[in-house]
Amino acid sequence: MGNSFGHLFRVTTWGESHGGGVGVVIDGCPPRLALTEADIQPDLDRRRPGQSSIVSPRQEADRARILSGTFEGRTLGTPISIWVQNQDARPEAYSEMAEKFRPSHADYTYQAKFGIRNWQGGGRSSARETIGRVAAGAVARKILREQFGVAILAYVKQVQRIGARVDYERVTFEEIEASIVRCPDRVAAEKMIRLIERTRRAGDSVGGIVECAARGVPPGWGEPVFDRLEADLGKGMLSLPASKGFEIGSGFGGALLTGLQHNDAFRMKGGKVRTVTNNSGGVQGGISNGETIYFRVAFKPVATVMREQETVDVRLENTTLKARGRHDPCVLPRAVPMVEAMAALVLVDHALRQRGQCGNP
Amino acid sequence: MGNSFGHLFRVTTWGESHGGGVGVVIDGCPPRLALTEADIQPDLDRRRPGQSSIVSPRQEADRARILSGTFEGRTLGTPISIWVQNQDARPEAYSEMAEKFRPSHADYTYQAKFGIRNWQGGGRSSARETIGRVAAGAVARKILREQFGVAILAYVKQVQRIGARVDYERVTFEEIEASIVRCPDRVAAEKMIRLIERTRRAGDSVGGIVECAARGVPPGWGEPVFDRLEADLGKGMLSLPASKGFEIGSGFGGALLTGLQHNDAFRMKGGKVRTVTNNSGGVQGGISNGETIYFRVAFKPVATVMREQETVDVRLENTTLKARGRHDPCVLPRAVPMVEAMAALVLVDHALRQRGQCGNP
Amino acid sequence: MGNSFGHLFRVTTWGESHGGGVGVVIDGCPPRLALTEADIQPDLDRRRPGQSSIVSPRQEADRARILSGTFEGRTLGTPISIWVQNQDARPEAYSEMAEKFRPSHADYTYQAKFGIRNWQGGGRSSARETIGRVAAGAVARKILREQFGVAILAYVKQVQRIGARVDYERVTFEEIEASIVRCPDRVAAEKMIRLIERTRRAGDSVGGIVECAARGVPPGWGEPVFDRLEADLGKGMLSLPASKGFEIGSGFGGALLTGLQHNDAFRMKGGKVRTVTNNSGGVQGGISNGETIYFRVAFKPVATVMREQETVDVRLENTTLKARGRHDPCVLPRAVPMVEAMAALVLVDHALRQRGQCGNP
Amino acid sequence: MGNSFGHLFRVTTWGESHGGGVGVVIDGCPPRLALTEADIQPDLDRRRPGQSSIVSPRQEADRARILSGTFEGRTLGTPISIWVQNQDARPEAYSEMAEKFRPSHADYTYQAKFGIRNWQGGGRSSARETIGRVAAGAVARKILREQFGVAILAYVKQVQRIGARVDYERVTFEEIEASIVRCPDRVAAEKMIRLIERTRRAGDSVGGIVECAARGVPPGWGEPVFDRLEADLGKGMLSLPASKGFEIGSGFGGALLTGLQHNDAFRMKGGKVRTVTNNSGGVQGGISNGETIYFRVAFKPVATVMREQETVDVRLENTTLKARGRHDPCVLPRAVPMVEAMAALVLVDHALRQRGQCGNP
Repeated sequence: MGNSFGHLFRVTTWGESHGGGVGVVIDGCPPRLALTEADIQPDLDRRRPGQSSIVSPRQEADRARILSGTFEGRTLGTPISIWVQNQDARPEAYSEMAEKFRPSHADYTYQAKFGIRNWQGGGRSSARETIGRVAAGAVARKILREQFGVAILAYVKQVQRIGARVDYERVTFEEIEASIVRCPDRVAAEKMIRLIERTRRAGDSVGGIVECAARGVPPGWGEPVFDRLEADLGKGMLSLPASKGFEIGSGFGGALLTGLQHNDAFRMKGGKVRTVTNNSGGVQGGISNGETIYFRVAFKPVATVMREQETVDVRLENTTLKARGRHDPCVLPRAVPMVEAMAALVLVDHALRQRGQCGNP
Repeated sequence: MGNSFGHLFRVTTWGESHGGGVGVVIDGCPPRLALTEADIQPDLDRRRPGQSSIVSPRQEADRARILSGTFEGRTLGTPISIWVQNQDARPEAYSEMAEKFRPSHADYTYQAKFGIRNWQGGGRSSARETIGRVAAGAVARKILREQFGVAILAYVKQVQRIGARVDYERVTFEEIEASIVRCPDRVAAEKMIRLIERTRRAGDSVGGIVECAARGVPPGWGEPVFDRLEADLGKGMLSLPASKGFEIGSGFGGALLTGLQHNDAFRMKGGKVRTVTNNSGGVQGGISNGETIYFRVAFKPVATVMREQETVDVRLENTTLKARGRHDPCVLPRAVPMVEAMAALVLVDHALRQRGQCGNP
Repeated sequence: MGNSFGHLFRVTTWGESHGGGVGVVIDGCPPRLALTEADIQPDLDRRRPGQSSIVSPRQEADRARILSGTFEGRTLGTPISIWVQNQDARPEAYSEMAEKFRPSHADYTYQAKFGIRNWQGGGRSSARETIGRVAAGAVARKILREQFGVAILAYVKQVQRIGARVDYERVTFEEIEASIVRCPDRVAAEKMIRLIERTRRAGDSVGGIVECAARGVPPGWGEPVFDRLEADLGKGMLSLPASKGFEIGSGFGGALLTGLQHNDAFRMKGGKVRTVTNNSGGVQGGISNGETIYFRVAFKPVATVMREQETVDVRLENTTLKARGRHDPCVLPRAVPMVEAMAALVLVDHALRQRGQCGNP
Repeated sequence: MGNSFGHLFRVTTWGESHGGGVGVVIDGCPPRLALTEADIQPDLDRRRPGQSSIVSPRQEADRARILSGTFEGRTLGTPISIWVQNQDARPEAYSEMAEKFRPSHADYTYQAKFGIRNWQGGGRSSARETIGRVAAGAVARKILREQFGVAILAYVKQVQRIGARVDYERVTFEEIEASIVRCPDRVAAEKMIRLIERTRRAGDSVGGIVECAARGVPPGWGEPVFDRLEADLGKGMLSLPASKGFEIGSGFGGALLTGLQHNDAFRMKGGKVRTVTNNSGGVQGGISNGETIYFRVAFKPVATVMREQETVDVRLENTTLKARGRHDPCVLPRAVPMVEAMAALVLVDHALRQRGQCGNP
């Protein structure tokens, strides 16, 4: 269980890193949206390994194929099934994984939970699983953009201790994509890339923080008390592999302020109720307030490192393991489209729920 | 929508701060559990205002009444309805709230979403709503304790910049409850209390961090890919009023480590697979690994401050507002049982789901 | 589990026949609907025992109290909690039920499922449980009537072998309520009443068929493939106590026709696409087609009869049992508001889902 | 929405009759079940057109391919994705359907709901959609058989007015499959086949009734009050194309009996609580009682007939339509595996839910 997400715009992902492929079924997509594979492929390309010198060299084309739910280039309102075939299967590269649990991977926990696991390349816990999310997220983003005027952008905010200065209100897609690390602060981006390259040569890995902004969300999205907008955003982000933390608006830093400092005063502007500051991150009481929604996601360093590590084997004996083969020194550049996708899935679901219950977007 | 939480152990809360009361319906509670109001009241007492000099002086008895689902002191397996009547209704104290949107409260967003709101004391967005959660959480904790051997403890880890040193593996309930601020580090607790009292006198408020540990969770709980254990814990916590951030294990700090530093080596201990460190926070690949689960929740300072603030009124004109009456300078001591409750709701639900799908706890 | 119904307009019922009462929480009700207890009480009065000489003489006022979700007479969009206190508790009348499983009641199955049961008056399996449904159904019917122009009417179509002639397109509420058996065919109603009275004197019971019509449903409601409109209507009806069958439109009789006879030809009428006949019962491919939706529900005779019957006791020994006390010779007149309520719950949920996904009612 | 079914064993189907194929994702399948395509194909072969002279001559191989969720021939506990490619696409055969709404098909209602439709062969409303259900049902039946000792069998009980005599307690799979009409009463089967052949020659179609029995279900499955076992069975059956009615146990006929006649007396037998009769159909109070569960589903005659019929075109003008090409005179033989599949999906879901909440099967 647990492979579906959303309430009215509901996605179900499937697939292991090895086997017939990975995919997603989207149920509840509004009808008559123009949609072809060309709307999905760009985000898959931003997600895939091998796209630059600082990510995993694994080569996968990751071609999306829409199997259902569209007709003559438009959505039917019926389930959209998207499939990406697996290509780069090299089971022999993983034979040691059949015997040993990789530290800080999910090998041991899948085995403990299910009493069985696909030990080839991580199986279902592989980052490859996110292909389905990114494909569905591309559909969600298109709906948000065309039907609700909402734009979602994510970027690398920090790699280890190298932070970037980014104005979440003004940053553009082009600025983000201008560097292979997807950090729009050019000076920081340079440093990040050098750090990642150094880390790769050391056979090690680094983590960091992705920030995401959603602009144009109207007031009223979010379903308290449990499906608060930040609760669903947090769930979506924390369901991404390697994520360890989530904060919205002022976040953990907000805990250092007093109420007077933290409160966002209201003031009319352009005929609209606006806030002077945005410590709330665009959400108050679990409902969007019309300001830009922004949040940050912490990602731990990738667990696969090219060094010998202490571990345990399937016979429950202590042993050591040294990973071989392809090595992803930093997941952050590829995490950017994943974060955008999950944000889009949350927001479009809440848009439809708001329209359903209250009759307005 | 959005007032239910959980999948097999499913709670639905209801109620505004003013009106007939607040409550919860629990659907899916295992049968034959010994349960009376006496199991619930202690947690409600830890949650209620007026319990000490550093929290809101609002006086409410918050007496829980079980209306259904038990028979001769045991659960029937049928829905458990718990009701707490409202007592301290003083609508006149809120008349200004009918006209003005309080900054960083949910007045404006509820109005924008629903086109109507109960302006008395915050209505549904009041912290009073959490009574239902805490009552249901008390039931969930009892099941976890008695049927699964799981213990959940939360405590105040930080108030503004005052941090506490706490060993999440060994801290006891008594140590936590020994201070009114619910911080088990006695030196830090003293400082926190002084800060909160100073803040109250200044008519201001402070935020901070609550940490929570769940000990005894067996390997195998958690439902990837979307209902990862940390994703559901994160959602539960971020659905609490005033929460702005969540991190598990190493959290945001983990982003500063390298993979080699961060990875938790496996090593056999007492016949069990254990990890040498616990940066994972007891969860790997979204599934518990048998180590203690621990996480932190950031709470912003309470929005109600006793100072004049800039805002907008319902006629969309700029104005100012100064809160009157009762003032809660720090929500953290009362947030502790809320965090424990949400953790318990998440864990018991995953325990039942694991038993349902895989046939073992 | 299983005590919630609906997706966007979601109700959760709770309560046993003995204990603190019965009730319902409605999550997802559209905001700003005028709503007070006066909107709910009439349907509860039509459902309650003791309303006429041909139903159970059990005396219960069944006063609904709205505990949350409204403000100044209008819905807030937040959960509406409705509570009806139990009054007529006479546990001593049920002492034999603690020992013996009543034939064709749920005593044995609840015991087998949960290992415990409230043996007082049927507990959760009591018809009293339907109070929550009828209360929520009254809210749903009001929304359907005022916001979507949909009217729902049910009536007794058959008692044992006595059938009634009713035009489902034209029958009125007044015609139905004119007789205590709620059959608008006056001649048949007379016969039905005499049969029920005869049956009551014999200490026996009779079943029959309730028919229901929903007029004014626009084309487009229903969510294939699983949440077809007739599938959800069928589920709703078959979740009512004592129901054994459901058929829509031509139903079982439709199996006797050929395709040529059964097909509903389309023909323009008043600028609208209409069907010449309505064997489809207003639903085609699981979606409403704009014609009147009509269906029938079969109810078995009430299981409580005033005669000695063979059974088994809790020690698993053969024994006999003779019911005592109050006796309901025919549930049909009281089933009418239950059927209407479930129909309303299904339809309003589909109205909101259609609006959510497709943006139109 | 509405393309998922089940709670713990949850299936999501997708696909139109024309396009990339049809399929299903199963989420929540217990791990370690032996499973290959060979477990699924036989039921698909029983469902497919062209299998005999009395069903649609449309030729489709309907080869199932498992894309995920298994490893070395066993289930992983992760989502199982099953795909069946479309082969027999002849869009030109459907060109008239682009212009005209076929009577008693879903052309008009899909258009009204979504504002768009795939007019090739019925799109999502095609019987082809049931492939995903039958594939998932084969998995569910295997679990029920191997892990819970439950056997499910369906058969044709009636074609138009030709009824069959079948003992639902003893009928075997071989007896059912012995005739192409899937009726185990040999004399009736002969008559049915002759009727269907006559009907086909006349260009018309006939409907009838499928009966289904589930043997070996232990007491305790079913989740009152809404997810009663018969309510979920009813929903499952009424979600099948062309179904118009459902009845369990005594069904509509039960409405003709008195309580004394209808009640199933309890009596100990072989150390178990058993009922002397089984008018309840194996379910009491919405929960299985250990007796064989049996129910009947009414199917209307197939809407496609080879005669001219009155209808309306997409320009909303009256016109006529005469279907061409392949013609399925009776859906019943192919409906048998569909009914079995839906029964299995309902039962396995309730088995897992019972294990989850109550800890026993």
